[in-house]
Amino acid sequence: MTDGTTPTAPVQVPHETTVGIIGGGPAGLLLARLLHQAGIDSVVLESRDRVYAEQRQRAGMLEQTTVDVLRQCGAGERMDREGLVHDGIELRFAGRAHHIDFPTLADGRRVTIYAQTEIVKDLISLHLAHLSGTSPLLFGAEVHAVNGIGTSTAADAPDRQEDGAVPPGSPAQPTVHYTHEGQERVLHCQFVVGCDGFHGVSRGALPASVARTYEREYPHSWLGVLAEAPPACDELIYAHSPRGFALHSMRSPTVSRLYLQVPNGTDPEEWSDDRIWDELDARFALESSRGWRLNRGPITSKAVLPMRSSVTEPMQYGRLFLAGDAAHIVPPTGAKGLNLAVADVAVLADAFARHHATGDTEALENYSAGRLRRVWRAEHFSYFMTTTLHTAPDQSPFDTRLQLAQLERIASSSTAAAELAENYAGLALLDGPSDGTAGPRPFS
Amino acid sequence: MTDGTTPTAPVQVPHETTVGIIGGGPAGLLLARLLHQAGIDSVVLESRDRVYAEQRQRAGMLEQTTVDVLRQCGAGERMDREGLVHDGIELRFAGRAHHIDFPTLADGRRVTIYAQTEIVKDLISLHLAHLSGTSPLLFGAEVHAVNGIGTSTAADAPDRQEDGAVPPGSPAQPTVHYTHEGQERVLHCQFVVGCDGFHGVSRGALPASVARTYEREYPHSWLGVLAEAPPACDELIYAHSPRGFALHSMRSPTVSRLYLQVPNGTDPEEWSDDRIWDELDARFALESSRGWRLNRGPITSKAVLPMRSSVTEPMQYGRLFLAGDAAHIVPPTGAKGLNLAVADVAVLADAFARHHATGDTEALENYSAGRLRRVWRAEHFSYFMTTTLHTAPDQSPFDTRLQLAQLERIASSSTAAAELAENYAGLALLDGPSDGTAGPRPFS
Repeated sequence: MTDGTTPTAPVQVPHETTVGIIGGGPAGLLLARLLHQAGIDSVVLESRDRVYAEQRQRAGMLEQTTVDVLRQCGAGERMDREGLVHDGIELRFAGRAHHIDFPTLADGRRVTIYAQTEIVKDLISLHLAHLSGTSPLLFGAEVHAVNGIGTSTAADAPDRQEDGAVPPGSPAQPTVHYTHEGQERVLHCQFVVGCDGFHGVSRGALPASVARTYEREYPHSWLGVLAEAPPACDELIYAHSPRGFALHSMRSPTVSRLYLQVPNGTDPEEWSDDRIWDELDARFALESSRGWRLNRGPITSKAVLPMRSSVTEPMQYGRLFLAGDAAHIVPPTGAKGLNLAVADVAVLADAFARHHATGDTEALENYSAGRLRRVWRAEHFSYFMTTTLHTAPDQSPFDTRLQLAQLERIASSSTAAAELAENYAGLALLDGPSDGTAGPRPFS
Repeated sequence: MTDGTTPTAPVQVPHETTVGIIGGGPAGLLLARLLHQAGIDSVVLESRDRVYAEQRQRAGMLEQTTVDVLRQCGAGERMDREGLVHDGIELRFAGRAHHIDFPTLADGRRVTIYAQTEIVKDLISLHLAHLSGTSPLLFGAEVHAVNGIGTSTAADAPDRQEDGAVPPGSPAQPTVHYTHEGQERVLHCQFVVGCDGFHGVSRGALPASVARTYEREYPHSWLGVLAEAPPACDELIYAHSPRGFALHSMRSPTVSRLYLQVPNGTDPEEWSDDRIWDELDARFALESSRGWRLNRGPITSKAVLPMRSSVTEPMQYGRLFLAGDAAHIVPPTGAKGLNLAVADVAVLADAFARHHATGDTEALENYSAGRLRRVWRAEHFSYFMTTTLHTAPDQSPFDTRLQLAQLERIASSSTAAAELAENYAGLALLDGPSDGTAGPRPFS
């Protein structure tokens, strides 16, 4: 089913749909599936081919909420079989190791390691098996324009919201213009959702007068490697070291996923396999067990990942919605990118379902403000994890002492550890009075 | 009793003592009192006169532990009568106000507002009434050298600790050299404690080969004012505003203590009274109650306070100990400076008492390491409060959004609020298994 080399069945090229979805990564595919479950048809336009889509190496740490959403939409079978459930993470600093226990600290929540590539394979299989009739998925469909998202075809001007955005209920007839098999095509939609990443066209389709992008570059990158070597232990290890940050993770009981902080602009070819293993061992070294070593094996993939934060506001204008990386980028240290994307589309699918069932646009109108609260929470947590664990090029000895003081606090205070655990294991999908994330309480 | 203009009784100038204390601020005075209670005599050498010592405007926010120590040493009577007990603080940002309730979040702890100047007056009165016979307090005694703290008078070299420091039990005969009433004098001590602040001689008496000072400058200052005006409300208000930070505090029911973030190098004369009040009102403005205003009144004091962090390690070498500002400076945002000083001398007095009773130097040997853990915790908390609430000159819109995201988290999550409350209201004096601050738990 997931053999990317098998040509997919020819797809009827559609001219209209309820929700046009730009981008066939996990966000777009999951949204199509959730909409299908709510009886809403869609079209997914993915610029790459299936082989490429199924091989993009990305994140692999799933919050409980993400696991729940994937299960509920029927994409959880292989994840439940092959995913590695973790009860926490290890913080390693000053030569010592400290386990942060999520179930104890964060109300029973756990995390699951299951690679994004596998989720994409599962969602594509599911899509092709069940959705193709009503909700086609087109590979090699390159979108170059999104029109008519916020301009009325009637004479009446749309109601503008406080932030200058146009509400989703405003009269409009969005069209998505794309190239497929050499043909220029147009897809007429009621709504368009941009799941096409930071460099996709959707983000740029927000009017410049309304959209604002907030950005931060981090002064370091990650060298990420996949190795045919059993993980040294069963823990995700986040290591603070005078030599820089390192992360020990895994893809399976026989495949290690390892990361090293490196300077921006590093060429992966500068790093021989031996140099990588030696540096990893040096950064993970424990004072009390000098024999601690990673298991070595062939390195099968080696890539440098820059670290960046970006948030585009608003995440909705007229009948265009942004989800996942199209709206926001986080540095990978907090493992939030995929989880934010899944939460975006879960909330959005629910809002479409309400609109479909009752005509009520309130949930659609609240999408941007509600998600941006969570996005900024994740941006802050990712910033916190990144700046607490990495060594900045201009870092002073005072700054290093502050990092160690904060890590000591987390290792010795259940309150500080719970603040990390709750953010890492993930907040509930929606704000609510009982989830500890209720909205601001006015002071009286 | 506290009339600073009354000449004090002539003091017998001593030639020797058990503990020579350099500096007669709250740390030095409290230490003398605690040592006296343990039957240990001391001499306090204060460079300024009594009037000056009693009028230095400093902090006024006392942690529960500080209140407990002052009470236990008999200096709590007026504090208990005149101090203002607070159940928390208010965070004000994005036009909204949020109460952080310390008793609920931090195990019943409260804070007390009682100015450092008043504590100094109380401790001087107590000293002159009860301690002068065995433990003189000399004003106008300017120390210019501390000798013999770590060199053996015997042939045997002192045992050096891992960090190169010399333990407090090493044979040595410290002498403190000072000028008093135009005379050069020498005080022979068994131990010397430097409570003479960042610019005092004690810190410089640590051998350069051993001492290391970690520093950070903050890119802003506070303009602090005292006003004859009733506080606008009963809360300490920490305000984040696009115009910069502001703090609303009080000295009494009729005197307000107010602070504004200003650029480094600001001349207080640039700020007329009207400009100060207008700017304070603008920074404290609430969106839901545009009529919120401070009560205005004559401004009786106006000063610009730079913000700096500094930690000197180790805090002990041979028979010299550092306490309070002589060892560490924190920016005032976390209200930790006075509380750290009181905790330093409380722990140190207890260690001297143990040594005095049994000859055991273990507690004295642990002083530096134990206190530095708490000092760095306070440095991080002060850094956190400062960088979350102030606007840096080079702050990007992304950075501002991060600050607001963190403030929203504190306002909406009891875990994040508890982390602030525990740090602000103060940790227990000593690490212990049940206070949530136990030492690092090894990972197994």
